[in-house]
Amino acid sequence: MDAPEPTETTTETTTTETTETTETAAATEAAAGTGGTEAAADWEFPPFYCPLEGAVHPGAEEAERRALAWVDRMGFCRTPAQRAWVEGTRSADFFARFAPRSDPERLWLGSAWVYWGFAFDDNRCDEGEFSEDPAAFAAMAGRVQRALERPGTCRFDDPYAAAVHDLGERFRACASPVQVHRLIAAHRAWLWGVQWQIGNRARGLMPHLDDYLTMRLHSAGGEPPYALVELAGPEVPAREMDSPAVRALTEMAILVAALDNDRHSIAKELRRGQTEQNVFTVLVHRHGRSVRQAVRDAVALRDKVLCRFLALRAKVAPRASRELAGYLADLGHGIRGNAEWGLLVPRYLSLRTAEQGPGEVTPPDAVEWAARPLDTGRRPPPLPSLAWWWDDLGL
Amino acid sequence: MDAPEPTETTTETTTTETTETTETAAATEAAAGTGGTEAAADWEFPPFYCPLEGAVHPGAEEAERRALAWVDRMGFCRTPAQRAWVEGTRSADFFARFAPRSDPERLWLGSAWVYWGFAFDDNRCDEGEFSEDPAAFAAMAGRVQRALERPGTCRFDDPYAAAVHDLGERFRACASPVQVHRLIAAHRAWLWGVQWQIGNRARGLMPHLDDYLTMRLHSAGGEPPYALVELAGPEVPAREMDSPAVRALTEMAILVAALDNDRHSIAKELRRGQTEQNVFTVLVHRHGRSVRQAVRDAVALRDKVLCRFLALRAKVAPRASRELAGYLADLGHGIRGNAEWGLLVPRYLSLRTAEQGPGEVTPPDAVEWAARPLDTGRRPPPLPSLAWWWDDLGL
Repeated sequence: MDAPEPTETTTETTTTETTETTETAAATEAAAGTGGTEAAADWEFPPFYCPLEGAVHPGAEEAERRALAWVDRMGFCRTPAQRAWVEGTRSADFFARFAPRSDPERLWLGSAWVYWGFAFDDNRCDEGEFSEDPAAFAAMAGRVQRALERPGTCRFDDPYAAAVHDLGERFRACASPVQVHRLIAAHRAWLWGVQWQIGNRARGLMPHLDDYLTMRLHSAGGEPPYALVELAGPEVPAREMDSPAVRALTEMAILVAALDNDRHSIAKELRRGQTEQNVFTVLVHRHGRSVRQAVRDAVALRDKVLCRFLALRAKVAPRASRELAGYLADLGHGIRGNAEWGLLVPRYLSLRTAEQGPGEVTPPDAVEWAARPLDTGRRPPPLPSLAWWWDDLGL
Repeated sequence: MDAPEPTETTTETTTTETTETTETAAATEAAAGTGGTEAAADWEFPPFYCPLEGAVHPGAEEAERRALAWVDRMGFCRTPAQRAWVEGTRSADFFARFAPRSDPERLWLGSAWVYWGFAFDDNRCDEGEFSEDPAAFAAMAGRVQRALERPGTCRFDDPYAAAVHDLGERFRACASPVQVHRLIAAHRAWLWGVQWQIGNRARGLMPHLDDYLTMRLHSAGGEPPYALVELAGPEVPAREMDSPAVRALTEMAILVAALDNDRHSIAKELRRGQTEQNVFTVLVHRHGRSVRQAVRDAVALRDKVLCRFLALRAKVAPRASRELAGYLADLGHGIRGNAEWGLLVPRYLSLRTAEQGPGEVTPPDAVEWAARPLDTGRRPPPLPSLAWWWDDLGL
């Protein structure tokens, strides 16, 4: 047996305080990577559990070519290293896994947004002048969001605003107003989560798990790609899209991918001396877990959410319209695609610095998958913000 | 002739920089109310221009009674003065003007949210521990937003979170998932704007006009009441609601009301020594206008937006569904209702302090209205974020 014994209770022991206390100096120091018990060698992960089928759009290479040409035209990469890191996100491959049945036009446009989003994330959210300045971030993000929203020709001094405005114009030209409106709302929700994350960073605060997961649902940036997936296909009726069941399924798909990204990026973060807010550092530094326990609890929680996603999707699918059925299939494509992409991509495999650029990397020959989830229990975890996903939700 | 001569160019002279520079020490000092030219006596306003008909729901008193009983049950008012200021918002009267045809249940629920929103605004946004701490605000707002969104029974330490969660449960019980989802998005967009405003306050930055108006579209808190107006009636089809024309009409209605609120509240702000971000202080301290010019430019801009609202609404209305027609009518009810309510309400008429409570006030016997707008030009103002409202927008 490859995987550890499944358990009902793995995630039941997590602390779920609902109030926030500022960290003690010791915890803050540990969170900053100057204390604590973690070292790169301590982090051993089981393979990912993912019983979903993957798919990749056959036009991924063409989309990559067009999207990178757009990146170069827009000029938001300021150095060759930035440009190399952006290319090293392999965003077209990423989006081609999320939207394997898109038409070619919306495939490259969605890919272009993902390249832009990773560049924005690296240079405006996780590092750079805004990354610890919540006041400056709010104003900059407000302008960028408005650039996406507002139609018509206009001039921008900020190349990130200019680029996202250009994409907004292109989305308006090829998708329905309802789909564009969904993307705009998803985009704001993403930046909202980043704002929260930057605020925690600015005051050296490691959030507790329930807060972290609520924040991460947004800050992970999963909402725009899934809105782009919907935008790349036929419009899903609002009655279905806004139902509690489909909201829960979308959130669960985002959280699984977000927790998988926490895993993809931890080697790089440890190498760079960043012990940033992620599910593992939250469990170690806020909840007192050992590294081994933190890995086990986080993976078990992620597996539990994935199992609930599969069960709820199976219940909803028979009553779904054709449009919703396609969207629900792509939620699964995104989970699988994200997990696999993250294991193969220079963004996470290269341990070089921002200034160095990613350089050559050697992806593994084959991806190994876990045979079963770490947590097979059907009860909701004791996390108030998420527990409703286990309610009796219908369309 | 009561009103000044209309002019095409009044708002054409406003500066529209698209980059932001931190204020000089002198400007910051002026913005903080310790310098500058303004004194309460300098501020003379013409009457409001508003050719829209008003209406008030006949059940406003009953809604007030039920909503205030809910406020008391929820316990978020911590002192008798806070409670008196909340009652002095006359939120049921406010919402009864926005939604004059609502059923009684949704009338009191919408009113309850407005009471809650004003209390939150006063104690968590404009004053209090979060009002200059963008990092702490982001985390608190993230938790409050999630409390609204997530269904099911749960316990909250924060009485504001508990109260908005209670309202969320009630909205889910009486409105469609699409309407609830719209409210949730509107609620996030409001808190997003407040976040921006708090960030500017924290760094002593007076924004330029285009940024201010973009921020104010959200921070004014107009989105949740209009979402509640829609929620109080039959669901407007997404195809119409998300069309550029209806988005523009909603934004214009919000901006007119927001600029009117800047006018309603300036006497109180001057009295309290707050020269906070509002359209007048932006024009005086950021754009170098005299008080007299600032008043004229701001009123002319507001009138110009209202004229465009009326013209676009007249164009869209003949093609609107019955549900959309009701919503468009209520956008106008809200503009008129807000302007009138603000002239009559203790929230703005009382110049006493937060600690004193509002005390007795004497509203004017009659409201005088301007005969014509200060700006009748049909060209868009040179404000990049808003100019698209003057595009050829259709349903």
